[in-house]
Amino acid sequence: MPKKVEDRAPRVVAAQPHGPAAAITRRAADRLRAGHLWVYRSDIESLIPPIGATDLQPGALITVMDSRGIPLGTGLYSAASQIAVRIVSNEAALTRTAYLDQLRERVLAALALRDEVAPESMEDDACRLIFSEADGLPGIVADRYNDLVILQLLTQGTAQDDVRSLITEVLSEHLRQDTGGITLWERPDPKIRELEQLAPPAPGPLHQNTTESPQLTTIFTINGLRFHFDAGSGQKTGAFLDQRLNYAAAARYANGNALDICTYQGGFALHMAQNCRHVTGVDASRSALEVADRNRALNPELPAKVEWIEADAFELLREYESTGQQYDTIVLDPPAFAKSKRAAEGAMRGYKELNLRAIKMLRPGGTLITCSCSHHVPLQEFTEVVSAAASDTGRRVQLLETRGAAPDHPAVLNLPETSYLKCLITRVG
Amino acid sequence: MPKKVEDRAPRVVAAQPHGPAAAITRRAADRLRAGHLWVYRSDIESLIPPIGATDLQPGALITVMDSRGIPLGTGLYSAASQIAVRIVSNEAALTRTAYLDQLRERVLAALALRDEVAPESMEDDACRLIFSEADGLPGIVADRYNDLVILQLLTQGTAQDDVRSLITEVLSEHLRQDTGGITLWERPDPKIRELEQLAPPAPGPLHQNTTESPQLTTIFTINGLRFHFDAGSGQKTGAFLDQRLNYAAAARYANGNALDICTYQGGFALHMAQNCRHVTGVDASRSALEVADRNRALNPELPAKVEWIEADAFELLREYESTGQQYDTIVLDPPAFAKSKRAAEGAMRGYKELNLRAIKMLRPGGTLITCSCSHHVPLQEFTEVVSAAASDTGRRVQLLETRGAAPDHPAVLNLPETSYLKCLITRVG
Repeated sequence: MPKKVEDRAPRVVAAQPHGPAAAITRRAADRLRAGHLWVYRSDIESLIPPIGATDLQPGALITVMDSRGIPLGTGLYSAASQIAVRIVSNEAALTRTAYLDQLRERVLAALALRDEVAPESMEDDACRLIFSEADGLPGIVADRYNDLVILQLLTQGTAQDDVRSLITEVLSEHLRQDTGGITLWERPDPKIRELEQLAPPAPGPLHQNTTESPQLTTIFTINGLRFHFDAGSGQKTGAFLDQRLNYAAAARYANGNALDICTYQGGFALHMAQNCRHVTGVDASRSALEVADRNRALNPELPAKVEWIEADAFELLREYESTGQQYDTIVLDPPAFAKSKRAAEGAMRGYKELNLRAIKMLRPGGTLITCSCSHHVPLQEFTEVVSAAASDTGRRVQLLETRGAAPDHPAVLNLPETSYLKCLITRVG
Repeated sequence: MPKKVEDRAPRVVAAQPHGPAAAITRRAADRLRAGHLWVYRSDIESLIPPIGATDLQPGALITVMDSRGIPLGTGLYSAASQIAVRIVSNEAALTRTAYLDQLRERVLAALALRDEVAPESMEDDACRLIFSEADGLPGIVADRYNDLVILQLLTQGTAQDDVRSLITEVLSEHLRQDTGGITLWERPDPKIRELEQLAPPAPGPLHQNTTESPQLTTIFTINGLRFHFDAGSGQKTGAFLDQRLNYAAAARYANGNALDICTYQGGFALHMAQNCRHVTGVDASRSALEVADRNRALNPELPAKVEWIEADAFELLREYESTGQQYDTIVLDPPAFAKSKRAAEGAMRGYKELNLRAIKMLRPGGTLITCSCSHHVPLQEFTEVVSAAASDTGRRVQLLETRGAAPDHPAVLNLPETSYLKCLITRVG
């Protein structure tokens, strides 16, 4: 349907000089008016430094305006990222003080949401506390793993001392109430830190309310199962908490002989091991499988025989299919194939092949749980590619559930890119 | 992505005469090869009656072939419906005996799926047992409400004695094992019965394994709440079992003062009444609200004050918005606005208006639970229209969950029309 875009009470720019600003293309302005929150560098027509300066400060709050000078809001400016501005408010010329006040309010709202939706049970102790744009807090992510809280300040606008100390204060105050003790570390994703040209975080914790020596490792619990976490390992933090409820769903459907493709540290595999006879977890990373095996050892009560295979997913599925291997349950949870819009077509071929082979390898009545975490592959396209794979096999496939990330990983309704995780649960006839 | 269509081992039609058949357009043939299961009347190029006959028997099994005579499968022919053929097998010239054998197998598979996924708990006793195409059983629907099982034979091919007695046998045999006693009724949706020009069902039950006099009414339990069911009321059967898990999700998020627009018999309203102070259920149907009120009385333990208002949803929301009414939780669950593809544009305007007004009426931090059950409005378009409404209000909206029908209402992966129910849970900042 055509989107009708209405101006929301535009404020006319005063004639006198105002703070730093960016004028953007009409297309980008329309997108912001429709609720989008990013301005790409290629959409900036001109940058206006503050009075007396010759350049915009990286990380500065700047007013975004359309090409006629009508302000659209305030955003955090990055001199390095392709996303040059991340909108934080509909109001123009938001001051740093007002931004910090708003930040405090939004962090409290984010924590209140998690108190409501996560973790799901008393024995579970891990979830995402703050999720960037989805909590109105672009460039800020925080995850809790039992007694560790990992903060990521991921943009030039948020990797700053005032933001750091405000969030440290609010998080430590809030979490003191419901946990024995926490240690708060700043550990940003190394790739994003490099993209945004950020300084490395301090070596020690930002905050600790226990007297023990600070640790970067812990054991956390989701759905009653225990997992190792190591914030010092350089692995992407929080990489799989978003799948938490999908793991639980997979456990409900899984049975017999199960295969978990791209098992990483064993998330799906160990959940399925609750109800299966035999589970094979496959990953290309030996170090991930070593953690998976240590996670297996943390859950000795699981009845299934579990084995780990270090292999490329495509090669292994080709080989298994040619040797006639059959499974009752298969999980496909590959890493994001489509890192960019341009890569999406290749990603589609990848998804098609993996799903085609998996469907062929399932016994009649078997369950396929197939995931995609590519931001650039919307649910509809992902469903279509799995459908195409199904129709190539000629088998009847029932769609039982269409799932996304757990609600502590919300999305921005007006920013479809933030609805990145798709998980289809299907039964193959 | 472009769908690559591959012929699946085409069988060349023998020169000798075969059974009744239909030759279809290339477009329709491509669709079937991609896994679709319907042939529209407008896509039929020619109908070929069996030897010695001048016409096709309504409800006959016929072979569907492309315009070159290459068979694509066997389907049930309807002389009345716009969907002229519903495919039941990839094989050509399936005999009635083979069709019935397959029917038995698929009914058993459908029941096995429900044993696995529904009802969710021991105290719950209602779910959909058979769901037409989604169980490979086009034209057959069965729902269980406690001790009543309601069978619908909805096409000329399935409203036949052999199908009726086979399903009666399998259902009564299967359900005897886990219930005290059941009564099986045939009660097809009156509108579809008229469309397909079917004879009315027998007045008495198809089967009963208790000695009591057969009843058309019962009380069933979902998510621990009790509801009246009346198979004789002429209301659409099973109209809301598909929302069962969405009701439970709504109850988790609801709080404070809640509004349930198009409450019908009180499904969302009574679930929210578990955690709210006050719930207002709105519907245009007085008779539906009378049942809702009787359902309220069945659940005296619910703490909320519940009131029912007979009103048009649009008019009421306009009035409430203009008088500045505010809510903490709003549910929108309108009937299918888009009964056809052509009606989809008007439906979009309807969804836009309802959602816009609801978002405006929510207090900061309020929850909007917004549903669409239109087959002709895909999830992506529905999400876009709710996004457009959100952006018109200028409020920040988080998408917490994207939900569909409960898994006892599966969809056909290759038939997107069967993924009809959409339910978004959002938080409005």
